[in-house]
Amino acid sequence: MKIARFVDPQGTIHFGTPIDTHRARRLGGQLYGGLTETDDEFTVTRWLAPILPVNIYGIGLNYRAHAAETGAAIPAQPVVFMKPTTTLADPGAPIPLPLACEHGPEVDYEAELAVVIGRAARNVTVAAALDHVLGYSCANDVSARRWQKVDGAGQWIRGKSFDGFCPLGLVLVSADEIPDPQNLAVTCTLNGERVQTGHTSDMIFSIAELIAFLSRDTTLLPGTIILTGTPPGVGMARKPPRFLADGDQVVVEIERIGALANPVMAASA
Amino acid sequence: MKIARFVDPQGTIHFGTPIDTHRARRLGGQLYGGLTETDDEFTVTRWLAPILPVNIYGIGLNYRAHAAETGAAIPAQPVVFMKPTTTLADPGAPIPLPLACEHGPEVDYEAELAVVIGRAARNVTVAAALDHVLGYSCANDVSARRWQKVDGAGQWIRGKSFDGFCPLGLVLVSADEIPDPQNLAVTCTLNGERVQTGHTSDMIFSIAELIAFLSRDTTLLPGTIILTGTPPGVGMARKPPRFLADGDQVVVEIERIGALANPVMAASA
Repeated sequence: MKIARFVDPQGTIHFGTPIDTHRARRLGGQLYGGLTETDDEFTVTRWLAPILPVNIYGIGLNYRAHAAETGAAIPAQPVVFMKPTTTLADPGAPIPLPLACEHGPEVDYEAELAVVIGRAARNVTVAAALDHVLGYSCANDVSARRWQKVDGAGQWIRGKSFDGFCPLGLVLVSADEIPDPQNLAVTCTLNGERVQTGHTSDMIFSIAELIAFLSRDTTLLPGTIILTGTPPGVGMARKPPRFLADGDQVVVEIERIGALANPVMAASA
Repeated sequence: MKIARFVDPQGTIHFGTPIDTHRARRLGGQLYGGLTETDDEFTVTRWLAPILPVNIYGIGLNYRAHAAETGAAIPAQPVVFMKPTTTLADPGAPIPLPLACEHGPEVDYEAELAVVIGRAARNVTVAAALDHVLGYSCANDVSARRWQKVDGAGQWIRGKSFDGFCPLGLVLVSADEIPDPQNLAVTCTLNGERVQTGHTSDMIFSIAELIAFLSRDTTLLPGTIILTGTPPGVGMARKPPRFLADGDQVVVEIERIGALANPVMAASA
């Protein structure tokens, strides 16, 4: 099932499956209790991020080719960071270039496969981990590199936490449609040019391994999002570096899931 | 106003002001809209953490004397990390020693002044920052040092994120009762022995500066918690190191706010 969230012309929010860019078929039921298809067709005024997360975890350096391009060693265990839930952004919403990025361009894209937990996970085995997944979506782990690397004194959070730094969507694809999440092509396109090309088979830690690792003595509630790392081609690793600028168009695309497109907008106070 | 949250004998949850260890006077109204005192006296079955946070930020190395004991330089900007909201623990709830801490003792206490945001803050000035504070509470930023320092590959989150690693309470004291949050004694007592002694006047970045910094292009929603750093005396810096063990009793105490007491309990699967 392809699960989107949208606003109808009366301002009501629904879950629904997209028919085309401005129409959807409503889904009944509950996101974590089971959605059901209906025949109710709605006009879509605006697409929203498919879920409201309770916590957002990110994994650093989880594609071999990306670890290589940054010069980092292959990590022995997953490198975990977080993004506040206020980073969530809708498909199509502008990615703001923060006023705090006052030392010059530093805002970077990261195309990522997002995993959404549907059933609480705690101390789950690798073998059972995927049973806790509600579905998969596209995310952009937008990162301000100077804040992440220099001004954060080694902790990545500040550079990962500005408003709008976690676009998500357009759809969440239920886990039953993606039996093998380690077999998906992931790309990022900037102004029509392919800048990131990767494949989830290149992940150092599989999605099942990440869930098992994060759930050690730690409850992953329904609505937890795990951003599973980015493939090579990020702007900071390009020669010369290529950071996001006002008016850019970024599209994250993942096989069997679809696309997440966001423009970039200069900040205003 | 002293704001606690509790369960009554019927299982209903209320806000209330403690009368003694097992009684409270109910508070009416809404936490973020204004609570009002009532004369309704309740028996308290269990005290809960005073709020359910939406995001928890932590600040590293924010007391000069603690930065010194860890050998770290005085940071030029606040060092920001996060804890997932699932770390929240009630006053009196056992701090679990995670099974994942399998290489030996590493779980440490950190007495901290917790700031709770009451009115959304974004790009606020230092001068206006405290107007966004709902109140102050005691927190214990429990930290697994090996996971924080070694197994986290430099990112602190994994060692800060185990279930039960953020005890909070017992009361939240409304901001009007604490006009100067930089004038509070902070202590931690372990099994009756004073192990941390500090004063918020020793903070490198004041609470107003932290709020202004974190709110740069970033919305701090009502219910955001900021853990403002810990004074010297943490277990890892003691000679020899002193980590938490099954049966320990940890009490965080802050002037004008009160105490937060939690036992420590060995993990079970």
